[in-house]
Amino acid sequence: MTVTAAVVGASGYAGVELFRLLVSHPEVKLVWAYDIRNVGKRVSEVHPNLRGLVDMKIAEPDYLKIGKIAKVVFVATPHGIAMKFVPKLLKGGAKVVDLSADYRFEDVGIFGRHYVKHESPQVKGVYGLPELHRAKIKRAKLVANPGCFPTAAILSVAPLIKRRLIDLDHIVIDAKTGTSGAGAAPSEVTHHPVTGANIRAYAATTHRHTPEINQELSKLAGQKVETHFTPYLIPIVRGILSTAHVFLRKPTSVKALLGLYRKFYAGEPFVRVLEELPQVNFVVGSNYCDIGFELDARRNRLVVVAAIDNLIKGASGQAIQNMNLMFGFDETRGIEAPALRP
Amino acid sequence: MTVTAAVVGASGYAGVELFRLLVSHPEVKLVWAYDIRNVGKRVSEVHPNLRGLVDMKIAEPDYLKIGKIAKVVFVATPHGIAMKFVPKLLKGGAKVVDLSADYRFEDVGIFGRHYVKHESPQVKGVYGLPELHRAKIKRAKLVANPGCFPTAAILSVAPLIKRRLIDLDHIVIDAKTGTSGAGAAPSEVTHHPVTGANIRAYAATTHRHTPEINQELSKLAGQKVETHFTPYLIPIVRGILSTAHVFLRKPTSVKALLGLYRKFYAGEPFVRVLEELPQVNFVVGSNYCDIGFELDARRNRLVVVAAIDNLIKGASGQAIQNMNLMFGFDETRGIEAPALRP
Amino acid sequence: MTVTAAVVGASGYAGVELFRLLVSHPEVKLVWAYDIRNVGKRVSEVHPNLRGLVDMKIAEPDYLKIGKIAKVVFVATPHGIAMKFVPKLLKGGAKVVDLSADYRFEDVGIFGRHYVKHESPQVKGVYGLPELHRAKIKRAKLVANPGCFPTAAILSVAPLIKRRLIDLDHIVIDAKTGTSGAGAAPSEVTHHPVTGANIRAYAATTHRHTPEINQELSKLAGQKVETHFTPYLIPIVRGILSTAHVFLRKPTSVKALLGLYRKFYAGEPFVRVLEELPQVNFVVGSNYCDIGFELDARRNRLVVVAAIDNLIKGASGQAIQNMNLMFGFDETRGIEAPALRP
Amino acid sequence: MTVTAAVVGASGYAGVELFRLLVSHPEVKLVWAYDIRNVGKRVSEVHPNLRGLVDMKIAEPDYLKIGKIAKVVFVATPHGIAMKFVPKLLKGGAKVVDLSADYRFEDVGIFGRHYVKHESPQVKGVYGLPELHRAKIKRAKLVANPGCFPTAAILSVAPLIKRRLIDLDHIVIDAKTGTSGAGAAPSEVTHHPVTGANIRAYAATTHRHTPEINQELSKLAGQKVETHFTPYLIPIVRGILSTAHVFLRKPTSVKALLGLYRKFYAGEPFVRVLEELPQVNFVVGSNYCDIGFELDARRNRLVVVAAIDNLIKGASGQAIQNMNLMFGFDETRGIEAPALRP
Repeated sequence: MTVTAAVVGASGYAGVELFRLLVSHPEVKLVWAYDIRNVGKRVSEVHPNLRGLVDMKIAEPDYLKIGKIAKVVFVATPHGIAMKFVPKLLKGGAKVVDLSADYRFEDVGIFGRHYVKHESPQVKGVYGLPELHRAKIKRAKLVANPGCFPTAAILSVAPLIKRRLIDLDHIVIDAKTGTSGAGAAPSEVTHHPVTGANIRAYAATTHRHTPEINQELSKLAGQKVETHFTPYLIPIVRGILSTAHVFLRKPTSVKALLGLYRKFYAGEPFVRVLEELPQVNFVVGSNYCDIGFELDARRNRLVVVAAIDNLIKGASGQAIQNMNLMFGFDETRGIEAPALRP
Repeated sequence: MTVTAAVVGASGYAGVELFRLLVSHPEVKLVWAYDIRNVGKRVSEVHPNLRGLVDMKIAEPDYLKIGKIAKVVFVATPHGIAMKFVPKLLKGGAKVVDLSADYRFEDVGIFGRHYVKHESPQVKGVYGLPELHRAKIKRAKLVANPGCFPTAAILSVAPLIKRRLIDLDHIVIDAKTGTSGAGAAPSEVTHHPVTGANIRAYAATTHRHTPEINQELSKLAGQKVETHFTPYLIPIVRGILSTAHVFLRKPTSVKALLGLYRKFYAGEPFVRVLEELPQVNFVVGSNYCDIGFELDARRNRLVVVAAIDNLIKGASGQAIQNMNLMFGFDETRGIEAPALRP
Repeated sequence: MTVTAAVVGASGYAGVELFRLLVSHPEVKLVWAYDIRNVGKRVSEVHPNLRGLVDMKIAEPDYLKIGKIAKVVFVATPHGIAMKFVPKLLKGGAKVVDLSADYRFEDVGIFGRHYVKHESPQVKGVYGLPELHRAKIKRAKLVANPGCFPTAAILSVAPLIKRRLIDLDHIVIDAKTGTSGAGAAPSEVTHHPVTGANIRAYAATTHRHTPEINQELSKLAGQKVETHFTPYLIPIVRGILSTAHVFLRKPTSVKALLGLYRKFYAGEPFVRVLEELPQVNFVVGSNYCDIGFELDARRNRLVVVAAIDNLIKGASGQAIQNMNLMFGFDETRGIEAPALRP
Repeated sequence: MTVTAAVVGASGYAGVELFRLLVSHPEVKLVWAYDIRNVGKRVSEVHPNLRGLVDMKIAEPDYLKIGKIAKVVFVATPHGIAMKFVPKLLKGGAKVVDLSADYRFEDVGIFGRHYVKHESPQVKGVYGLPELHRAKIKRAKLVANPGCFPTAAILSVAPLIKRRLIDLDHIVIDAKTGTSGAGAAPSEVTHHPVTGANIRAYAATTHRHTPEINQELSKLAGQKVETHFTPYLIPIVRGILSTAHVFLRKPTSVKALLGLYRKFYAGEPFVRVLEELPQVNFVVGSNYCDIGFELDARRNRLVVVAAIDNLIKGASGQAIQNMNLMFGFDETRGIEAPALRP
């Protein structure tokens, strides 16, 4: 079975990454590229890495029609846009993977406070983190693909939260992202002379990925969890390194912790539990999330570090992982590529 | 048919890139990893990007045996080493792709002057630039994979040389490489505080890739060609941008030049002739060589720029392209991945 | 004597570099900051590196008044703007150092072809390269500060041109700049995800610094010189490395060439002639221009490399060097800082 | 009065930074350069940024003699070396600023556990953080210059600790350093292909700057303080961004906190308290420590960020600041340079 696929939001970095991965996916026929920008241009004019590979033209979207003709639609539009047209896509019969934040929140009030008022609150998506919600994703018509920081942050502490091993009041998550996370639109913050030899924290206590992380960890804990999340921009293009500084409720050995993580992620195709701290170096270019930790046994502090490629496991790769699940394909299909070294 | 493959020189950057690409090559079964360093370690310990993907142990090489058990052997040892054992590999019956310089020169005297005295001058390889020597490569037992700079430099001017359109006395090639070209061994030159915000020229008139470029261009021209080659190290990890400053013998139009290049590279799966100047951005992660030019019609100067990923088209990707030809596989098999963007 | 100084164009990178250097210049009292942007903001709000150091407010310029109250005015506005108001500044009695291209060309027709139609062609500036025009600069009311690429390119070959040692038809200048050369305004080209791991050539045969280089070299040669100039953007913030590939008319020794350069630049406070190739590493943060070369004696090719900090010797430092000359101060005053290492 | 100065450890990055700053210090005559490496070479051969500026030869040190002839000796040797010869320098009569860790600890047992057994435990230095110990530094014969991370970390939370406003059990310090912090010796970790697009945590719970931070904060608190410190290497050359995640004991307003910090650092020449989060961009090249914070009032979490240039305020600049105090010079003399932008 080959699935026909459309991408809405062809001009951005999530868009090009979807094209790059889908073009060689053996179960997918990439047929349509949509955007309200660059209409009439070839995908490869906007994304010259795809010259000779994805030369179809970008069309203006007619959502009802797209929903009818495509089996799967990947939505890679800015936050607050997808909610306007995803109901139309679903109505047409297509399955949808939305890479924006629009359907990630079970409580649309939270979405409203951190983004904008939701315009299709009646439509519900499944939070697309396969390691936590695989069964639901398989049955979903609409998957809300997780944010990049939440993917790394949630995976880094999920086993600890699930087993209630840590102090829930002092979960500090200090996460660093490459500049591709800022998207394709130039700005002062991403101007090379400004950021090329810089590091800066931003939204240090107010980043809107925080409620997303909290939602998922709260479900895991069975009680309200509020993390302390601070992100940074560093001068690399791709990659997120997310550190969780947490405090164990009682003394636990490295061996026990390693066992816990390995059991929790047993069989997971894209989580690698390491006996050392991970680096973005060994995941960039791949769909892997590497996780490792260091224990300060004397003080019961645990430093858990997770590394992902923000555009793959943190966005388009995970979207394809979700699509694979939704259509019953091998979960790793099309996203098996190892990371590049160096 | 599946070909069993061995890699000799598993610890370096060409080695890891071979593993990364071979692991998902549908016609190849990657069976053996050899090196004199890291013996007994798993490949994935040395190259953590391959954790869970290439976990075989690195063994000390027994060349006669390797030549008997493997159908193809990729040699990724330092210059001056392969010449000591490639005859043994060939004797065993294996086909060999040597990524070092050892068999690139038809005149071993030239090799001797620029590298070391050759120890197996009786063994001859085919220069593995498929765009120039495809037919011979298909029949070869031993392919000498081109150097990274020569790949870009030769492809950038081959059509002009072949058609004798330019002044052969004033071919200036000014080429910039990322730091992965320096290999995996740390040094002062690649120390991040030294090179992270630096650019330097090196071996500005004496680089040993010069005779390699000259050999191939001379064959194309049917007469002796001596280029003026100057390389630089720039603070990117992957990528080469090679500029040829050349002077046309007589006025020629952009259209005619574009026609020439398109005809010369018609059907080539990995050369893209552009109507603009290429950037490393759009080839890194892929086996493509992008070529574009700008003409100063008033002064008959042509600036031709070629961009490659030095570790793929400039090394391991091209080695696999050669292997595909040697075994009759589709030439693009295993190296179809588009470049990453961003 | 203390000179009162004004900066027009306070918001850009040349502006902030002027402030940074002038604030500790012992002969200058930095009094006024002007711009049409950021009016009413403190300089240190726009340039937070200057917090506590340059906290004056940016005012909207009244050029006639500025010309009367300031002894020296540094003009750091975009090309094509200074020509509208420099006559007013001069009329007021101030001496002017203009960092834009507006008064660099003796032939305003050339300016018109490469920039815009000149609006004050009757006003003439002295080309502010002290190594070539020191005497005239000392007497000048208006100095046209050289472009960044021309500073490096001209200095790299001036001795050869002056002595007519090289073939004037084949001067290839291949120059690489950091991203600060693109100015403070964000754009696609300087967007970090685009440029952070990239190298690209631009305006490969048409850059408007070419006629500026040619003007100065022609004056030196006493005949028309047309160079072949190609610039690149590389992912460093500061620094230019400019390579001149030239061909000697007759065999010349390294010793003779070194003697020539040392004699030509004898006594120059900011040119260092090296016995090796220079790197941007050893000039960034300083007003130095380091020059070195490598000779291919067999083929009479000479590769001359010059390195500067594009914002200091290539812009604001040289502007202060010119001011020092115009007011009879020690030429090095205020710009003595060594380069940073690392 | 001019002070004659010697630098022991001329070859490293702290050494070259001392030269760079001292060469233009109006009260200092830089006379001697010592090292056990590079003996006989000129300083400017080892550090080409200083060509023409610091051309004295590097001599093998005779410590007793140095102590007699120099008024001040800067010691920039690796940890565990200074302790072998500083007593001799002091015996000769020189004042000493030691940039290594050897005399930073009041309890030599702590030094022994984290470094090596101390060989001159009878000699005591003053911890050279002027903002905390100015009076003692002024009278000191031996100043132990603080570590780079401790400088930023201590300054970021000192006002909170002093006033006991925060929970002392949950002080998480997550600090990122540029690669120059690793020193001048090449290694796998600083190899550009490895680190150029990477971020890694290291010694995540065991870094030996932790006890140094704890010593100073404990003195401030009047009780034992143990922080949770985790450092990272990021691909910039210079700069440290240190984040303290702390929890307020009771609700406090931004205004009150800002007032606290401003009062605590009132009159400090090198600490700037900002109303926004600092960036390394605005301190690199200067001796400033910029501090800013963001408050999560609902949850009483405070994120305090400090930025320094690791080689200036984090090493050689602070050493000169200390020397200025020890000799009664203006504290800012020789280290007034603003940060570079961009």
